[in-house]
Amino acid sequence: MESAIPTHLVTTRCCHRRVDDDYRPPYPSFVARHKAGVTQVVMAYFGLQYRDELPPAATSSKSEFVALASGAHGPSHWDRASYVDQAGFANEIFVAYWDDVVRFDTWFEPARAAWTGADVVGIGRFIEVLRPAVERYETLFSSLGRPEGVAVIADGMSGEVLEHAYWGGMRDRIPLSQTHDMKSSGKPTLLEDGTRLRVLAQDNLCMIRSGQDWSDTDAAERRMYLEDVEPVLREGMEFLRDEGISIGCYANRYMQLRGPDGALTEKSYGQSWWQSLSALERWAESHPTHVRIFGAAMKYLSSLGPAAKLRLYHEVTVAAADEQFFEYLGCHPKTGMLAAV
Amino acid sequence: MESAIPTHLVTTRCCHRRVDDDYRPPYPSFVARHKAGVTQVVMAYFGLQYRDELPPAATSSKSEFVALASGAHGPSHWDRASYVDQAGFANEIFVAYWDDVVRFDTWFEPARAAWTGADVVGIGRFIEVLRPAVERYETLFSSLGRPEGVAVIADGMSGEVLEHAYWGGMRDRIPLSQTHDMKSSGKPTLLEDGTRLRVLAQDNLCMIRSGQDWSDTDAAERRMYLEDVEPVLREGMEFLRDEGISIGCYANRYMQLRGPDGALTEKSYGQSWWQSLSALERWAESHPTHVRIFGAAMKYLSSLGPAAKLRLYHEVTVAAADEQFFEYLGCHPKTGMLAAV
Repeated sequence: MESAIPTHLVTTRCCHRRVDDDYRPPYPSFVARHKAGVTQVVMAYFGLQYRDELPPAATSSKSEFVALASGAHGPSHWDRASYVDQAGFANEIFVAYWDDVVRFDTWFEPARAAWTGADVVGIGRFIEVLRPAVERYETLFSSLGRPEGVAVIADGMSGEVLEHAYWGGMRDRIPLSQTHDMKSSGKPTLLEDGTRLRVLAQDNLCMIRSGQDWSDTDAAERRMYLEDVEPVLREGMEFLRDEGISIGCYANRYMQLRGPDGALTEKSYGQSWWQSLSALERWAESHPTHVRIFGAAMKYLSSLGPAAKLRLYHEVTVAAADEQFFEYLGCHPKTGMLAAV
Repeated sequence: MESAIPTHLVTTRCCHRRVDDDYRPPYPSFVARHKAGVTQVVMAYFGLQYRDELPPAATSSKSEFVALASGAHGPSHWDRASYVDQAGFANEIFVAYWDDVVRFDTWFEPARAAWTGADVVGIGRFIEVLRPAVERYETLFSSLGRPEGVAVIADGMSGEVLEHAYWGGMRDRIPLSQTHDMKSSGKPTLLEDGTRLRVLAQDNLCMIRSGQDWSDTDAAERRMYLEDVEPVLREGMEFLRDEGISIGCYANRYMQLRGPDGALTEKSYGQSWWQSLSALERWAESHPTHVRIFGAAMKYLSSLGPAAKLRLYHEVTVAAADEQFFEYLGCHPKTGMLAAV
């Protein structure tokens, strides 16, 4: 049993953990481990948005992103997912990860100019970037052998960690929680730069990517996931998308990942922007929509036990004000952090 | 909005609360307030146990307790509840409350001699006492106007308190949590004193009395409580009773209160003994049986809203080793804290 906080980031606490050293979680979970030299990572969401039939500009945008990502200083890893949003728009999201912020900066200037530098007829485009210090985010995986998201660029995975399977584990896994309450301050504001809209950041804004992968499940388990769990998960995701603002969730996307060939895979993730880590904690712990998700997942996992082939993971970041960038071009006003301003 | 911790017990924290000052609970709750001069309270459980038909000694024991309680220095309040335990024994429990430990001590010496001083044919008897400092327990009520348990002897009730409706609220309402993690240490041990069995205490043993009162509900709400919530609650209570030991719950009694005339009322409570506050927190937060109770209660309360007439309350104590007393005479070996040794 090891701490989710890597040894080199352990500091003298002024904030206690929610569980004692002798706490033992009821099932195993793991976290991504970076090399000690990695001090900051980058999570960059490149989106494109369109209505109705696939416009030619959308098809070419996809190729354009792939070309950008393949260029010099490009991401160590990226993936692609899609969903239809509350306004009926199709959205394609490319998420790219770096563990070297200098490399990212070099890459980003021309990439940004290409992506949101000029209007593109028939589609919207946006960029949402977090570049957190490693003290400011955590990951959690239910199984080994298939990293997702930022964990793909990590050096590897931990052994079984202590800080999970209790409310507060998310916070306790974030190294900064040892010394900081991570309260948010300020509020996002809009800056208009011609037709480009930028959202200026808020200190300690919170983002979660939370995924599920049912590709390894056999027929019986797949049916249980798709019939008993997924509809409850979808209901919670739709609540956050449509009514999240009332509880501090600015925006939520519940997406299905695409494979290298562009075909939909048996993997999905929800990605949401939160006013604070506290707001995310409160929803997860007590809102009826998440209590139902948690109940369905508990029932599922307790009936299958270690035989479950469903893979679950998430990554949660609490970003400082200078670790955020949001830019939207030609998107509808409920797109991502535009919904917050 | 006020803190559950009364002003005169606020100290300089070394342990932080789980929520910020700007947290606002989604619905109101209240706590009992003692006069500032009250420094310690006593919660004394007097039990009698018998099998099959009501033996004459059980009937006379009931009158005996009533006579003891009515004597000089008797409790400020007591109530009576009953249940059938896992071994098929009927149990009647009288719970008595004092806010003056000197008065209790004076009363207790002869009362103890009368209750567990000599074998009584055909029945078992037991005494379980906690006498916590006021820093070591908390209460919570969903509504005003009908105190139960230790709250009956309080000076009154608070206004709406801040520390509730999130996991960790229970701990945050206990004044000692400001400066102490309340980890438990030691383990209960058995001491045989002739036919009397005493269980020697464990530091920071935890006890909860958690009650529900459906006497004010109209027909539709009563049906909803009895059909949708109570069976789930019962299932959780039975899990704790039968398998609780695996998760740190030594014993659980799910009882129905009797009125002054001895008839069953529309009030019940669960009372359980826990290895530590942490163990209780872990069960409440993540065990499937309590997640289902919580889910059922959330669904109930969110569909009825403020119109709900169901009353809920609890009291939770974390007792120091010298604030505990357990004595059993002629009881079966799974009675109360005997199950722990």
